[in-house]
Amino acid sequence: MINVAVTGASGRLGFVLSKALSGAEDLHVSSTIDLHGQAPLSAPHFQELTTEALVGVDVLLDVTVAASARKNAAFALEQGCHVVIGTSGLDASDRLSLGDLATRVGRECLIVPNFALGALLLERFAAQAAKYFESVEVIELHHPDKRDAPSGTATNTLQILAEARAEAGLMEPPDATEVESLAGSRGGVGPGGIHVHSVRLRGLVAHEEILFGSPGEQLSLRHDSFDRSSFIAGAFLAVRNVGKRTGLHVGLGDFLDS
Amino acid sequence: MINVAVTGASGRLGFVLSKALSGAEDLHVSSTIDLHGQAPLSAPHFQELTTEALVGVDVLLDVTVAASARKNAAFALEQGCHVVIGTSGLDASDRLSLGDLATRVGRECLIVPNFALGALLLERFAAQAAKYFESVEVIELHHPDKRDAPSGTATNTLQILAEARAEAGLMEPPDATEVESLAGSRGGVGPGGIHVHSVRLRGLVAHEEILFGSPGEQLSLRHDSFDRSSFIAGAFLAVRNVGKRTGLHVGLGDFLDS
Amino acid sequence: MINVAVTGASGRLGFVLSKALSGAEDLHVSSTIDLHGQAPLSAPHFQELTTEALVGVDVLLDVTVAASARKNAAFALEQGCHVVIGTSGLDASDRLSLGDLATRVGRECLIVPNFALGALLLERFAAQAAKYFESVEVIELHHPDKRDAPSGTATNTLQILAEARAEAGLMEPPDATEVESLAGSRGGVGPGGIHVHSVRLRGLVAHEEILFGSPGEQLSLRHDSFDRSSFIAGAFLAVRNVGKRTGLHVGLGDFLDS
Amino acid sequence: MINVAVTGASGRLGFVLSKALSGAEDLHVSSTIDLHGQAPLSAPHFQELTTEALVGVDVLLDVTVAASARKNAAFALEQGCHVVIGTSGLDASDRLSLGDLATRVGRECLIVPNFALGALLLERFAAQAAKYFESVEVIELHHPDKRDAPSGTATNTLQILAEARAEAGLMEPPDATEVESLAGSRGGVGPGGIHVHSVRLRGLVAHEEILFGSPGEQLSLRHDSFDRSSFIAGAFLAVRNVGKRTGLHVGLGDFLDS
Repeated sequence: MINVAVTGASGRLGFVLSKALSGAEDLHVSSTIDLHGQAPLSAPHFQELTTEALVGVDVLLDVTVAASARKNAAFALEQGCHVVIGTSGLDASDRLSLGDLATRVGRECLIVPNFALGALLLERFAAQAAKYFESVEVIELHHPDKRDAPSGTATNTLQILAEARAEAGLMEPPDATEVESLAGSRGGVGPGGIHVHSVRLRGLVAHEEILFGSPGEQLSLRHDSFDRSSFIAGAFLAVRNVGKRTGLHVGLGDFLDS
Repeated sequence: MINVAVTGASGRLGFVLSKALSGAEDLHVSSTIDLHGQAPLSAPHFQELTTEALVGVDVLLDVTVAASARKNAAFALEQGCHVVIGTSGLDASDRLSLGDLATRVGRECLIVPNFALGALLLERFAAQAAKYFESVEVIELHHPDKRDAPSGTATNTLQILAEARAEAGLMEPPDATEVESLAGSRGGVGPGGIHVHSVRLRGLVAHEEILFGSPGEQLSLRHDSFDRSSFIAGAFLAVRNVGKRTGLHVGLGDFLDS
Repeated sequence: MINVAVTGASGRLGFVLSKALSGAEDLHVSSTIDLHGQAPLSAPHFQELTTEALVGVDVLLDVTVAASARKNAAFALEQGCHVVIGTSGLDASDRLSLGDLATRVGRECLIVPNFALGALLLERFAAQAAKYFESVEVIELHHPDKRDAPSGTATNTLQILAEARAEAGLMEPPDATEVESLAGSRGGVGPGGIHVHSVRLRGLVAHEEILFGSPGEQLSLRHDSFDRSSFIAGAFLAVRNVGKRTGLHVGLGDFLDS
Repeated sequence: MINVAVTGASGRLGFVLSKALSGAEDLHVSSTIDLHGQAPLSAPHFQELTTEALVGVDVLLDVTVAASARKNAAFALEQGCHVVIGTSGLDASDRLSLGDLATRVGRECLIVPNFALGALLLERFAAQAAKYFESVEVIELHHPDKRDAPSGTATNTLQILAEARAEAGLMEPPDATEVESLAGSRGGVGPGGIHVHSVRLRGLVAHEEILFGSPGEQLSLRHDSFDRSSFIAGAFLAVRNVGKRTGLHVGLGDFLDS
């Protein structure tokens, strides 16, 4: 039985995941934590992440935002918990310091930028396809209340594509644009000169498309998250597997096929 | 019988259109003009647009680039021809001066940013749908040898959408973006605050997609030009109808359903 | 103030619409009716559609299935209500008999196969585009719990396309298929020889795509309903406008632009 | 230097591939064969595949149709050539007999249902993704002059998906359809109960889409062949690698990443 605490449990994603985890036979949600909102379960609910909230907890699942996640993760690691962070907003220095801490205390800190298995497969396929195409661009589409662009998942995809192309000795994708009559039309330019486009549209949830092009052909890989139920399977995978290693790890890729 | 001269006749589009027009019973391609390249037909071929090249010509079809089109059109109007310009690169001041000239000489100058009938319908539908949706964004995708972004067709689409939304009293589409971690990710911003994204990908030809969003639903309108044969029907429509009016006109919209 | 009764009010769609209608200032949900389930509102709730349930009711909104809708509509018309039926399953003989009844009692029976405004626009555009393309096929995609294929909306789209093509003198779309190695691969064949394909996929809600093709180009029109909130605006339009005419009418098309 | 003969060399695909192969430094197109049409190259051209046409030939590349390919391949194997067959129409008994023959004469017969690398990656990804989704359906779209449905590539995809799902212990995808009001709407049903839909549309070339669905999410993989230039890279891969093994082999998968 794995004892889990959830920070951000009263938010929309936190609510869905808390409910789902609490229904599993091999898991026990022993506390929920959220500054705002109500307790989503009958489990003890705290407004702050305190020592008390982590008594007996094996895994902290944090689904807040980057600013809180950073602090919550550090606190929980020091209390001896393994940590799963379900936000994509942490930067390289966060990763470094959390990784150092996790290694020192002999715990695992697992950052999962996207819990959807389809998103995970999308990145896996992106890595495999990258070297076979002259061109590649990324389009991500979200609801218009999203605050950052491009999305954390798309930023990660760009990195994966750039690395695979570099390894195969590919140069930057061809682009003869001389005049950009509306600045930004060609999108953001990520590592390896790969362009990314962020669409914000009412009615959408979270979507990403990778377009590969070569003479006469196109390969398109697209993932759509229509609602938060798409994150449940990945959250289970993370909570059940975190702690098998120590230090910082990113993504669920190592748990597929296992 | 309509006598037609074609400037840019040795280019890829010019070649396709010259061939097609020369096969019609009611049309006669009486001369072709191109600084570079070979004569596409057995008709007299000129390297420059001269008085001689326009003897007996009713309609000049220009499929060069903006810089030449501007000059060619003015020259032909002064020689008494009606003119069809098949490029989207002319700006407001070009339109003004060509319109003045056309009116003065009692001829028509018809600018056709896109000869594909599907592209024309796309814009017509965009105008009709605009007022029913909270959000709208435009994505245009082309081969990577294209020099301008966004495309002339997309620029035109933005204008159409902005006018329809303004008329219906809609505000700018919602957008909570605070952080654009890669500049340009959110695309170019056109009139009415409508965002546009230009993708450049080897293997593609000319494609445009308009995404409309409201709570719980999305309407997507997409046009794909796979090859230049898609421009033939529209070129016929233009050449056969130009001259029924005088002054400057834009697009083939008035000839649909007629 | 329009008094509304809702049959099927405890179902998923009925619940969403009852809630939404009850929040409008110019409407009053005076009763809800559902054989199964709980009362969605504080309004009087009935398990059967009785005379009592329709006392003082101006409009019956029926969101049950075809078998019940037929009976509920007839009953309500006879009680002097106008009726909005939000199901696509009624056939030609249903329409005939409900239309006769509505005319006789001087009331309106409005059948709305799809409340989403985007779906309505899709059909409008389909009618306009049909005559300009040699080929057209329809793909509709839904969740796998749907019992009928093709969807009522797609069936309606086929009819619209066939009529527009016939009017323009177009023959059946070209199709050289000689061998169908898996029976049904080419889809269902509707009026005018137009093919339709029904996809059933977990995770989807309700989606329809119309593909038009001509030499060198494609025009794609797609509507996605991601959740039931997309039906609210259309339900308001129906309830507020029903009763301005008598007899049977289909769709919300006449209320757009008004 | 590899000496290559091409059967079907005057067809549209044969012409493109013959031209491309003849431009490579490590290849020599020593003869072309086609019953109809003209010699595409200056190489000796034959109307029938005879012993003379295969003198000094290492590899026969056959891009005819199944009925001829079967005979051409057998003849060339007996003459000591390795064979690449670029059609998808051969059935299990053809494969068996060609495999037996190839093994007996110590040569390789390589069947490549689709030369596009993107199509190859599509199938590879399909195999990897299959076990993670409850639902999957295949849509293939082609020009309306195609004679068979579903396409050979789609038939192969169905097989790959069915095997991957069976291996993972998945049952047939969910489908509650009770009424198919237009027969065939739900498409063809392949191995493992996987549905396939064949669209035929003027303007299209060769396209395939695989849709995977799970609660709340969709993964879409799509390949577009816009013109025959997309087949060149794969044809080179096949001609350069055939003969490293003996007997019958299918597809280019083993040559990727090598």
